[in-house]
Formats: sequence, C-alpha cells, structure tokens
Amino acid sequence: MSKLRCHISILLDGFVAGPNQSKENPLGEGGEQLHEWALELEAWRRPHGLDGGEINASTEVMEWSLENLGAIVMGRNMFGGEGPWGDEPWDGWWGDNPPFHMPVFIVTHHAREPVTKEGGTTFTFVTDGIEAALEQARDAAGGKDIGLSGGANVAQQYLKAGLLDEMQLHVVPVLLGAGARLFDNLEDAKIGLDCTRVLEAPGVTHLRYRITRLP
Amino acid sequence: MSKLRCHISILLDGFVAGPNQSKENPLGEGGEQLHEWALELEAWRRPHGLDGGEINASTEVMEWSLENLGAIVMGRNMFGGEGPWGDEPWDGWWGDNPPFHMPVFIVTHHAREPVTKEGGTTFTFVTDGIEAALEQARDAAGGKDIGLSGGANVAQQYLKAGLLDEMQLHVVPVLLGAGARLFDNLEDAKIGLDCTRVLEAPGVTHLRYRITRLP
Repeated sequence: MSKLRCHISILLDGFVAGPNQSKENPLGEGGEQLHEWALELEAWRRPHGLDGGEINASTEVMEWSLENLGAIVMGRNMFGGEGPWGDEPWDGWWGDNPPFHMPVFIVTHHAREPVTKEGGTTFTFVTDGIEAALEQARDAAGGKDIGLSGGANVAQQYLKAGLLDEMQLHVVPVLLGAGARLFDNLEDAKIGLDCTRVLEAPGVTHLRYRITRLP
Repeated sequence: MSKLRCHISILLDGFVAGPNQSKENPLGEGGEQLHEWALELEAWRRPHGLDGGEINASTEVMEWSLENLGAIVMGRNMFGGEGPWGDEPWDGWWGDNPPFHMPVFIVTHHAREPVTKEGGTTFTFVTDGIEAALEQARDAAGGKDIGLSGGANVAQQYLKAGLLDEMQLHVVPVLLGAGARLFDNLEDAKIGLDCTRVLEAPGVTHLRYRITRLP
C-alpha cells in the first residue's frame, strides 16, 4: 500500500515554526531559519520555477522527498488564514502556480469548493478529519505515496493516530526557544521509530525514520 | 583553554528524563530508554567495572566522551535527592567506586563537606552557582576539558549563560511525550551551533555541535 510520508524541517529544540505566525510571517518569528538550508538548492528552486542553485548532500534528500509522491495532505494552518473562508478566500502562499504539481488535501473545519491552480496543483478542502483526508489523498495518488506537509498540529494528529509511515526530519542547528513543536501532545501515543538514514549536509542534518505502531 | 563539553542522551522528542523522577526511578518513568544504546557497550561496561560488551559505531563516541577529560560538573538533581542533606546524606547513585574516576563538582543550594570515593572520584558541593562550579572544575582539571553531565536544569543554565563549548547529543528514536526537556527555558539565549560530527549507530544517532555565543 502507498505510504504516508512526512518531510519536515525542525530546529534542534524541536520547533517547526516560530511564535506569532501570521499571513505576513507564515513560519512565525525566526521561522525563516527552518528552510535556509533548502532555499539555495537547485532541487528546491526548480519546482519553484527558479533557475540555478546548488547541488550538495541535501540534493538527494530533496529529490527523494518528491519521489513516487502522488498527493499531499496538509493542515489548514499551513495552507494559511484562519476561521471561515469569507467572500475573498485565501488561496495559499504559493501564487498561481504552486510548487506541488499534484492534488493537495487540506484538513480544515471550514467547507469550501475545490480550487484548481496552474501546473497540476489542486486544493481540496476536507472537513471530516485526518482519516478522511488521507483516504481521499490515497485515492488521488493512484498507488503512489502521500506526502504530509504539516503544520505541527496536523502532523501530531497523524502521528498520534498511527497513520504516518515514514518521517524525514531536516534538523537545523538553531535553538529558537519558542514556537510550535512537532513532538507535542503525544502523551498516549504508541509510536515505534527506526532510524533508517542519516545524512550530514551543509547547515542541516537529515534523519529518516520508519514508524511502527507499538502494541 | 579547556572546554566545557556536554554529553547527553536525548529522546527524539527532546526529553532527557521521563516524568516523576525519584530515588527509585532516577531517570523518571520511561527514562531507562535513554541509555539502552550504551549499556551493552564494552566502552560503557569497562569504566563501570564490568567485563565484556559490544564494540560498535558508538564505541568511538563513548571513548571520545572520556578523552582529555579532567573534571565533571553536574546538577543536584542528577546527583540525586532533594533539599537539605540531613544526617545520613545521600551519596549518589553509584556506590563506593563511582564510574567518574575524577573530581566531580555538584551545583546545589545546600552546603556540604566534600566526599572522597574509591577510584579517584571526589564529590565537591558548590553553592555559589554555575560559574563558581565551572571555575573550581577548571582548576581541578589541570588544563583538560570539563564534562557537563546534566540534568536538564543545570545544562540549560550553562547553555543559556554561553559557558558550554561543545555538545554531544545521543539521539534515541523514542517519543516519550513527557518529562524534562533539554532545550527548555532558553527564550533569550543567543546560541550559535555548528554540527561538527554525525554518526549513525545501532539504536542511536550521535550529533556533535560546536557552540558559539551570538552577538
């Protein structure tokens, strides 16, 4: 069966976003440090429609994160905005041609018609929970894997429910001291982890884990 | 100058001890998982007076953690017990011949005469703060490095004060969900980190960081 895989940048003190996230500051204060390692990579720039860029040890991980991926699930907080959509609904951070180029399913409390963007990206809004979103993503992925994009809250929900199969952490050597932690609210989770890949790269350490459900 | 180096096992969700630490359960509930990777190693068993044991990729890290080390500082919580020492003072978890074999300085609020153990270990109790403890340890170390042994609280104090030079994390693939986090209470710290060594080993990933004080 297709796997649910999470690829997420995380600061050494566990934060995956800084404090005070907003439309102006989607990753929160200091959160831009999460992705500095990626922004200069050719493997990041190409799907974002940009030329040039570096090739280094992170390239392999970045390419692997897109390999065999057929759909994406993300939380409403990562898609952006809050509350009901309103008359001029927020359309994501990514402009007319988002970098996903595949179906994206957004877990939200607020119903909304699907949105079709350029380049193969569709946004579908799922209001009946994380399992329903995963099921729809799995149908859309046609046997390929599903990428879980965050944010912290929805990643915690999938992890805690035992639905996540693999986790690729990009560990950034920064102590931010505040924000949203990936590994919070997991008190009763029965999660087994095996580290399957360790890779050192400029400004980041990539750790991959296979996830099992403990008895 | 001699360096202050921290070597600490940390769970993937950031905990360095489980909840409800006690004399019966010094690492807290579930905290024994922190050190499972080490207990079977020959390099751990030998300084603890035990024969046999494995040699694997962790051996190098374990030996490095003792290399060029002349003294140790630790917090009262790691030494054990709480409050005034009383008439039959707690003497640590480690019996008559503790595995340190060098001078150990314990940061505590409660004054007490030094204790001399077998095998070269001395316990000196320092009541005037982390800087005083480090200064005494540096004198005792005779130019060698000083090891910072935890627990979380005293490690945070040294980190926040910019006194820690190097940090060797042993990252254990376990999500405990509760306990004491190493990277807490660091809101205003100006800490720069460079990852200098990444090593994959059975049941643990070793990450080493050089620490600088940011402007």
